Amino acid sequence: MKNGKFIVIEGGDGAGKSSQCRLLAERLINSGTDAIVTREPGGAPLAEALRSLILDPKYSPDAVAELYLYSAARRDHMNAVIIPALNAGKTVVCDRFIYSTVAYQGYGRGLDIDFVREVNAKTIAPLAVDLALFVDVPPAVAFERKGGADKTDRLESEQADFYERIYQGFNAMCESGELLRIDASGKKEETAEKIYAAVKRIL
Amino acid sequence: MKNGKFIVIEGGDGAGKSSQCRLLAERLINSGTDAIVTREPGGAPLAEALRSLILDPKYSPDAVAELYLYSAARRDHMNAVIIPALNAGKTVVCDRFIYSTVAYQGYGRGLDIDFVREVNAKTIAPLAVDLALFVDVPPAVAFERKGGADKTDRLESEQADFYERIYQGFNAMCESGELLRIDASGKKEETAEKIYAAVKRIL
Repeated sequence: MKNGKFIVIEGGDGAGKSSQCRLLAERLINSGTDAIVTREPGGAPLAEALRSLILDPKYSPDAVAELYLYSAARRDHMNAVIIPALNAGKTVVCDRFIYSTVAYQGYGRGLDIDFVREVNAKTIAPLAVDLALFVDVPPAVAFERKGGADKTDRLESEQADFYERIYQGFNAMCESGELLRIDASGKKEETAEKIYAAVKRIL
Repeated sequence: MKNGKFIVIEGGDGAGKSSQCRLLAERLINSGTDAIVTREPGGAPLAEALRSLILDPKYSPDAVAELYLYSAARRDHMNAVIIPALNAGKTVVCDRFIYSTVAYQGYGRGLDIDFVREVNAKTIAPLAVDLALFVDVPPAVAFERKGGADKTDRLESEQADFYERIYQGFNAMCESGELLRIDASGKKEETAEKIYAAVKRIL
């Protein structure tokens, strides 16, 4: 039985999601809420093995294969980490989840969005997300922040218009109400404050 | 452009599919048809890496994760091996394909059959199977033939009623006309003869 809250933080590469996940979990723990941070793809043994395959430049899965690899990793991560933690009453802060799949494989790589959504629904059932936030940094700013960052894996070497389509995907999910937009154009601490305020409302 | 024929040989474990694939390809080659044999899961670098994960007893993907792992491996195998060979005018003889996923993950492990079929359709598009044969050996006979065979991987250690449900799945696909049933209760050479006769009709 699910006792904890399941919180997802989404955003493009370089939006600062990972720091925000850590800051949120620290703040929850400091205020007495038992919380863990976990990330996708990965977070469990099979999922981490799949992450290595996904990021290995020696393989070149197409968009359909990528959808299945991320979904298999997600399922393993859910079964091994997320659901047990929620059942134990912990709040789980997850760095990326199904919304990234809609944005990256659907909007970014052009797969049929309805099919991506159906795969997502079958993958996570019977789990429900309690709150999904979009850390909103325009792609140009995110790119700037990353600076000359790591370009060694396949995902990092994709094109700027790919990132633009992904951003449009996240935007569409904010407009439909699936994601709650958090303006992250300011300082990291300001963004953390906005995220914590949104989370407090559902705790 | 697809110039060769795509032939799938399906069946339960121990039905003798692999030998029949080899015998068929040899006979095709001897009669002047350029042919290759390939197998699932595997047959391409990423697909083989996924095969290792699937068969590794240290991981325990549930039925949903298994569906995605097999489908990702299939997609890679198609892109890297099957489609290029067909385009080069070769006849491809494939040991297992989408029908195994319906039988094992659908009938065997209880996933929603319609969802499995939809994933299969999205996975193989735009490829079409020209002929799909079911090498029909009743599960009790297949089990006997395998003898005290290899029980080291996870799939081999599943239960007898699981194999019974899989057999029912293959049966249902023969009845709907998706698979052509080949009676394989006799000698290996007799079965090979029946398979070759069926294949000759579509060449």
